[in-house]
Amino acid sequence: MSTQAGRGGSESTQRGPVVTGVDITPVAIADPPLLNASGVHEPFQLRSIIQVRTDAGITGVSEAYGDDATLAQLRQAAATLPGLDVFHLNDLTRRVSGALASASASSPTELIGAASADKTVAQAVSAFEVACFDIQGKATGKPVVDLLGGAVRDRVDFSAYLFYKWAEHPGDYPADDWGAALDPDGIVAQARRMVELYGFGSLKLKGGVFAPEEEVAAVKALRAAFPDRPVRLDPNANWSVETSHRVAAALEGELEYLEDPTAGIPGMAEVAAKTSLPLATNMCVTGFAEIPEAVRLGAVQVILSDHHFWGGFRATQALAGLCETFGLGLSMHSNTHLGISLAAMTHLAAATPNLTYALDTHSPWKTEEVIAGGPLRFVGGALTVPEGPGLGVAVDEDALARLHEQYLTCGFRKRDDATWMRRVQPEFTGRRPRF
Amino acid sequence: MSTQAGRGGSESTQRGPVVTGVDITPVAIADPPLLNASGVHEPFQLRSIIQVRTDAGITGVSEAYGDDATLAQLRQAAATLPGLDVFHLNDLTRRVSGALASASASSPTELIGAASADKTVAQAVSAFEVACFDIQGKATGKPVVDLLGGAVRDRVDFSAYLFYKWAEHPGDYPADDWGAALDPDGIVAQARRMVELYGFGSLKLKGGVFAPEEEVAAVKALRAAFPDRPVRLDPNANWSVETSHRVAAALEGELEYLEDPTAGIPGMAEVAAKTSLPLATNMCVTGFAEIPEAVRLGAVQVILSDHHFWGGFRATQALAGLCETFGLGLSMHSNTHLGISLAAMTHLAAATPNLTYALDTHSPWKTEEVIAGGPLRFVGGALTVPEGPGLGVAVDEDALARLHEQYLTCGFRKRDDATWMRRVQPEFTGRRPRF
Ligand SMILES: [Mg+2]
Ligand SMILES: [Mg+2]
Repeated sequence: MSTQAGRGGSESTQRGPVVTGVDITPVAIADPPLLNASGVHEPFQLRSIIQVRTDAGITGVSEAYGDDATLAQLRQAAATLPGLDVFHLNDLTRRVSGALASASASSPTELIGAASADKTVAQAVSAFEVACFDIQGKATGKPVVDLLGGAVRDRVDFSAYLFYKWAEHPGDYPADDWGAALDPDGIVAQARRMVELYGFGSLKLKGGVFAPEEEVAAVKALRAAFPDRPVRLDPNANWSVETSHRVAAALEGELEYLEDPTAGIPGMAEVAAKTSLPLATNMCVTGFAEIPEAVRLGAVQVILSDHHFWGGFRATQALAGLCETFGLGLSMHSNTHLGISLAAMTHLAAATPNLTYALDTHSPWKTEEVIAGGPLRFVGGALTVPEGPGLGVAVDEDALARLHEQYLTCGFRKRDDATWMRRVQPEFTGRRPRF
Repeated sequence: MSTQAGRGGSESTQRGPVVTGVDITPVAIADPPLLNASGVHEPFQLRSIIQVRTDAGITGVSEAYGDDATLAQLRQAAATLPGLDVFHLNDLTRRVSGALASASASSPTELIGAASADKTVAQAVSAFEVACFDIQGKATGKPVVDLLGGAVRDRVDFSAYLFYKWAEHPGDYPADDWGAALDPDGIVAQARRMVELYGFGSLKLKGGVFAPEEEVAAVKALRAAFPDRPVRLDPNANWSVETSHRVAAALEGELEYLEDPTAGIPGMAEVAAKTSLPLATNMCVTGFAEIPEAVRLGAVQVILSDHHFWGGFRATQALAGLCETFGLGLSMHSNTHLGISLAAMTHLAAATPNLTYALDTHSPWKTEEVIAGGPLRFVGGALTVPEGPGLGVAVDEDALARLHEQYLTCGFRKRDDATWMRRVQPEFTGRRPRF
């Protein structure tokens, strides 16, 4: 029943596009042996490529985690999507929440915080919401950035993501061309090459790998070699509160921010209370439910957004509003990803006024791509927003088939950095804090 | 320069619609002598009707405050809008902020909290953002609700807005057909008629007019006459903290919420600490800057949104996210308005999942309308979202001309309930708290 029909003139509204089906294709992409608190990246990282088909003949694309648990959840949720109007994003949330009401919480990696029922739903909503926005854009002739409020910046800056690493994986895997980086000199050399190749204006070192003093020395070496470039350090909560105090004192004034020195909101609050370094997180505040305690305790000064686990573009914009309101900085987190996610991150960041930190990206470590035309190209450490309607990127179906075949044959089904680490260091437990 | 061109296929994006001009037409609408803490509503309330023209031949409409200060600000901001892509809402904010950077803060009424520079910008952004959404909807064939995430409810419930009132204005103004309401019996009779006419399922009494004990008696009379209908009471901060404690104690268990019993966040926090009644506000938390203190002190349990002063649809959705995150309830405030604002409120509410309280509206007090087809029609106390693209309502140009003529001749240029009150009660100061 409607009581308000026909007031707006003679035009009528158009429903849809309406979802007719969803294809979820897991892929495996080669990855170098990058060291972190959990162990070492395995030879392949898993992603899933999502293609949402509609009655308008428009297909929307998205990219999500590719571990078995995520795939099962995505498929369970996807089964409820036929009939969804791609503009009805609240209905998307309703459908996904319903589909996953009894799903057990799972996380593709401990490095993005604890699993929760809310985050499980948020991850699945995000995977489909991005594709819905791609369809909305294609249906209206608009880039996604315009559907998110329009660009506030022409270029989206990214940060050079530096990792301690081995020269090659144990076993029969081809070596990458970056070589080993196991000390300050190795990190500085890696940074030089990465800055030369991509022009990044800021540097991020993944820490939590070696004794904190070695990582402090690496940061200081980076600062000396790149005096104009802000540096971040992220030990992924591999330090105790005491160790965090010590490292923070050693690095006063040296860091743009210190990311997840220790685990949990109370621990982070203890660290924050004794340092002038801003503390950032993508581990202790990874869902809306964790914000009130973090605010109350003053535990973090910067939140790393990530549309993949915060629940999509709209949820990330809500997070941005929260950060603005409570005087928190906003940055962006990255897991290993392909070009669809990179495009999504770029549209979102371009439309988010208070996302003023350079974004993280694993792009430089990637040697394979799923989008047509090859990887998005960094100029001066930045990306411009892809042109064309929607996300502005298209799946290269041959590449997708090849990466899916690689998924089928590679044998990896869930990220497990610790087990891979034990091939080389049998005594490695992965228990944190190690320092 | 673009480095990511042409990846999304052969389709190209469409810019715009682009703003070519803005018409701002002040109108005056007849209003009954409704009593409140500030005095009494004058015989006319002022609004402005905003029509944003574009190069696509599409005009978007909106409705805002109509006092002199607001009009000057809207005109100052409107001058910067030609060239604006109506999808570039971040650019809208940038233009309006720039235009009003040196404007002095003003508020159309003290009943929506203190004026601030942020709120002055937010009010102007909202006025144009709503029109931009109307254009977006017309350009894409979508109702605004779909551009805000889609409807989560078919019907949007509103509350019966009960006022103490005189039978007629002093001076040569026609009497309305509601008669006087100056005691519990009068309020119950008013409620009966309003419920009969519109079917409202909840009741709101504007208080702060008479001695609190009389208003307590009115609430209890409403509760007795309408045992199934939740009741709210809003004295517009006309009580001291002590009085608020006393009234809250007298009404424990009787109210859906108690709205702005006293002024300011610290005072509200004192009241909240001693009552189980949820406290609501559209006076002490009326902008994002006020939220952190309110959260820290636990001062309010429900925030009344209002797109007119929170900054538009997107800002109100950000507010909704904040309320959800911090466990605050969300309702919606009303000032005297016409059908364009009512349509806007309905689209927004339909798309906002946690807006679970019935909305306030002054609609029943209105005898004039500016939209074609007459006022939106309440059924069972609710509205369905207007059909048709955009807001789904169109300006009746004859009605607009008539109400503008009324504006020109009525002589009112700024709402001033206290001065009008002094025509009848020369000793009235309007100073709060009066009780
Ligand atoms: Mg991190
Ligand atoms: Mg109020």
